[in-house]
Amino acid sequence: MEKGKVYGISLGPGDPDLITLKGYKLLQTVDKIYYPGSIFQDGRKSSYSLQIMEDYDLSEEKLVGFYMEMTIDRVHVHPVYEEAFQNMQKDVSEGLDVAIVCEGDLSTYSSFSYLLEKFQQTDIPISLVPGISSFHLGAAEIQQPLALLGETIHVLPILKSTQVLEDALKVSDTVVLMKIRSVMRHIQPILEREEINFTYCEKLGTTEQFMTSSLDKLQERTIPYFSLLIIKKNKQA
Amino acid sequence: MEKGKVYGISLGPGDPDLITLKGYKLLQTVDKIYYPGSIFQDGRKSSYSLQIMEDYDLSEEKLVGFYMEMTIDRVHVHPVYEEAFQNMQKDVSEGLDVAIVCEGDLSTYSSFSYLLEKFQQTDIPISLVPGISSFHLGAAEIQQPLALLGETIHVLPILKSTQVLEDALKVSDTVVLMKIRSVMRHIQPILEREEINFTYCEKLGTTEQFMTSSLDKLQERTIPYFSLLIIKKNKQA
Repeated sequence: MEKGKVYGISLGPGDPDLITLKGYKLLQTVDKIYYPGSIFQDGRKSSYSLQIMEDYDLSEEKLVGFYMEMTIDRVHVHPVYEEAFQNMQKDVSEGLDVAIVCEGDLSTYSSFSYLLEKFQQTDIPISLVPGISSFHLGAAEIQQPLALLGETIHVLPILKSTQVLEDALKVSDTVVLMKIRSVMRHIQPILEREEINFTYCEKLGTTEQFMTSSLDKLQERTIPYFSLLIIKKNKQA
Repeated sequence: MEKGKVYGISLGPGDPDLITLKGYKLLQTVDKIYYPGSIFQDGRKSSYSLQIMEDYDLSEEKLVGFYMEMTIDRVHVHPVYEEAFQNMQKDVSEGLDVAIVCEGDLSTYSSFSYLLEKFQQTDIPISLVPGISSFHLGAAEIQQPLALLGETIHVLPILKSTQVLEDALKVSDTVVLMKIRSVMRHIQPILEREEINFTYCEKLGTTEQFMTSSLDKLQERTIPYFSLLIIKKNKQA
C-alpha cells in the first residue's frame, strides 16, 4: 500500500476566514486532522484550533485532538507530542493523508516546529502551508502599514529587558512585541514618550477583539495571552 | 443611494491558493477590482496581481488595471495612484463595492499604503484583509521555523550597509533580507561564515520557484526582483 502524506496547515490568527484557500482545501481532503489543545488544572479541555475549524464543516470522525497540560513545567508536553507523532506515523504507514493544524503561521512561534523536527528525522513526505500571523492581522486592523518601503520590522517575543526594546527602537522603524503580559509595566515608560506611536491589540480575529492606542485604557486592561503591541517611531518627532 | 465600501485585499505571495478565504470570497462579491501593474519601456504591460487572479474565475468586466511606468524616478507613479483613487471614489459614490488588490500582505512593503493614506482622508469606509508575506511562505518552503519561542525576527528591506546586517545578526536570531539584488556581492563575505545558515528564495509560490543554501549556486544566479534571504545564526556555533 502506498504511504500517506503529512501536511502542516496554518489556521491563521482566529477568524476562520483567514485560513488560506490552500489550507482550507487540504482540510477537506485529508483523512485525519490532528489539532493541539490545552487541559486546565480543573480537567477542562479547550482548543483554539478546534474552535476555528468548527466553521469548516469537517467530519468529526477525522478530527483528533492532542491536549497538553497548562503548566509552566514544559516537561509534560513532550510525551504528548511524541504520542501524537507516533499515531500520525501509524496513519501514514496505513496510507492515510494527515494534517496537523496550528493557529497563526506554523513557522512563527508555533509549537508545530517540535513535530516538524520529528518528521524531518523520517522519510515521510511533508508539506507546509503558511498562514497569517497575528501581527499581520494587527496591522490590517489598525489600518497602519507595518512597514513602508525601506523600513525595517523587528519582532520581539518575551522581552528580556527594557534595554532590548530600547535597542530595537534605535535600529527599527516598527517593533512588534508579542507575549507582553508579564512585561507590560516595565515598558510603560517607553510607551509614554512623545515620539512613540503604539497600538495594543487583543484577541485579534475573534469576536472579543480589542484595540487601543490610549495608555490610560491600556493601563486598566487585564492583558490576556493573545495580545501584542505594534510600536512605531513618529517620523515627525 | 447608499455609498459603497472599499476593501484592501492581499493576494499573497504568488500561488493563487495562498489568498485567504476572506479575500477570495470578497473578490467574488465586490463590483469592481482595481489591480496594479507595470508598463515597461517598450510599452509592454504586465500585472503580477492579475496573473494571480486569473485562477479565480472573476468576471473580466469588473477588473480595472492601473499601470505604472517602471522607472527609477517615482514621480510618474503619483498621478496614476491619484487617478485610480479618483475613479474608486466615483464608484463608491455610485454605491459600488470596490476592492484594491496587492501581492503579498498589504501592510508589509506594499504600495497599497499610498492608496490607504488617500482613503483615510475621506469618510469612505475601508476594510483591510491581510495576506501571506513572501518570508512566511519562504519559511514554510524551506521547512525551517522562522522563529521558535523566544527568538527574534528582523526584517530588513534594501540593506543600507553591511554594518546594518552585522548589527541585526548580533541582536536577532533570524534576519530576513528583502530586495537583495543590489547588495548581494557586499553580503557574500557574511554568508560565507561558518556560523551562518542561509537560504536564498526566488519567485516563491510560482512555477519558477528556486531555493538554495549553497553559496556556489547563489553566486551563479542572476537575482530577480522577487527574491529574499532568510539568515539564521547556527546555535551550535
